[in-house]
Amino acid sequence: MAVELYWGSGSPFAWRVMLTLEVKGLPYESKLLEFSKGDNRTPAYLELNPRGKVPTLKDGDYVLYESLAIMSYLDRKYPDPPLFGKTAEETGLIWQVLAECESYVVSAGDKVVRPIFSGKGLDKAEEISQAAETVRRELKMVDERLAGSQWLGGDNNSAADIGVFPLVQLLARAASKEAARPFNLGLLPLAQTFPNIARWAERIEALPNYQRTYPPHWRP
Amino acid sequence: MAVELYWGSGSPFAWRVMLTLEVKGLPYESKLLEFSKGDNRTPAYLELNPRGKVPTLKDGDYVLYESLAIMSYLDRKYPDPPLFGKTAEETGLIWQVLAECESYVVSAGDKVVRPIFSGKGLDKAEEISQAAETVRRELKMVDERLAGSQWLGGDNNSAADIGVFPLVQLLARAASKEAARPFNLGLLPLAQTFPNIARWAERIEALPNYQRTYPPHWRP
Repeated sequence: MAVELYWGSGSPFAWRVMLTLEVKGLPYESKLLEFSKGDNRTPAYLELNPRGKVPTLKDGDYVLYESLAIMSYLDRKYPDPPLFGKTAEETGLIWQVLAECESYVVSAGDKVVRPIFSGKGLDKAEEISQAAETVRRELKMVDERLAGSQWLGGDNNSAADIGVFPLVQLLARAASKEAARPFNLGLLPLAQTFPNIARWAERIEALPNYQRTYPPHWRP
Repeated sequence: MAVELYWGSGSPFAWRVMLTLEVKGLPYESKLLEFSKGDNRTPAYLELNPRGKVPTLKDGDYVLYESLAIMSYLDRKYPDPPLFGKTAEETGLIWQVLAECESYVVSAGDKVVRPIFSGKGLDKAEEISQAAETVRRELKMVDERLAGSQWLGGDNNSAADIGVFPLVQLLARAASKEAARPFNLGLLPLAQTFPNIARWAERIEALPNYQRTYPPHWRP
């Protein structure tokens, strides 16, 4: 029986898991939740995930949430190809990149992205600008890391790449919106501001079945 | 050659790594940094860890920071006893607990702990109370998880326990301070508010060599 993935279109955290499933060639049953319809607040869903967030994975009776946890589970259960390193050194680096993303990019990124997409809090220009500065500083570090390496976690595509990529995509999309204009986000065009990230993103976009993971409501 | 651990007294993140080293019985060279003396801002340290934070691990030429990354590295290199699960299901649960801790406890906890220890921002009572409410809600969930299990990540002590425990200790210590009195943090006494957490903490405190990991400046 295929695993079930509960996800939302445009959620970078769900996107990570979809990329993991595609890279490992694992079939899955797609359960697309529409937050606007309250799909994530139904009693049935809250029983699976009391936080009402995505992604959630259901594998038989086993239920798991939090994107990095799901990726770890899938990697342990289906180790080919390994996404958390072939050596202890790679494992450490991959988790370092992911921990830095979670600790420094995610919350600052949210402060930039949320007002732009929701239209709420756009008056807090100072807060948005400060968060954007943090995001730029962090992406600069990622860009520098990619100057000397094709991938973030060693010689191969890994959980570090798949984990960071959807956040970069979300930030780039937010920055391209009309509502972002008044703020000097300084993220676009990616190829100029973060050239190594731009090339790395192309490598991820070239992965087999990448297109299947692209957020449906982002398609033209 | 023993690994070198750069740490700070009372840092919950460094404490995680010390517990990992002790549980695995690994010798290490202690490099205690005093933040008040700027030990973490020296050029030599910033070369190891550009963020100037702790912990940092040095194993020969290999340098790694971010506590969960270091724990993953050590577990992969010295797998006995395994701290990230014996099965995929345990691995998933352990990382779920850790991800929830990082995403929901750490930032709220910091908003409670930092003003109490630093004496700065104590006037932001509303912010502290809100953060304390988040912390209580999260610890409630941890407490409920421990109602049915001795450990957070399965049948054995794991990275989930070692990862969450120092945060709980730090919060309890902050709550016991004079500066915390004006706020109704609602965390103490732990044995009454979160009885399962209190019993679980005793189990961790009973681990061999636990005392070696206890923050020196917390000792009576």
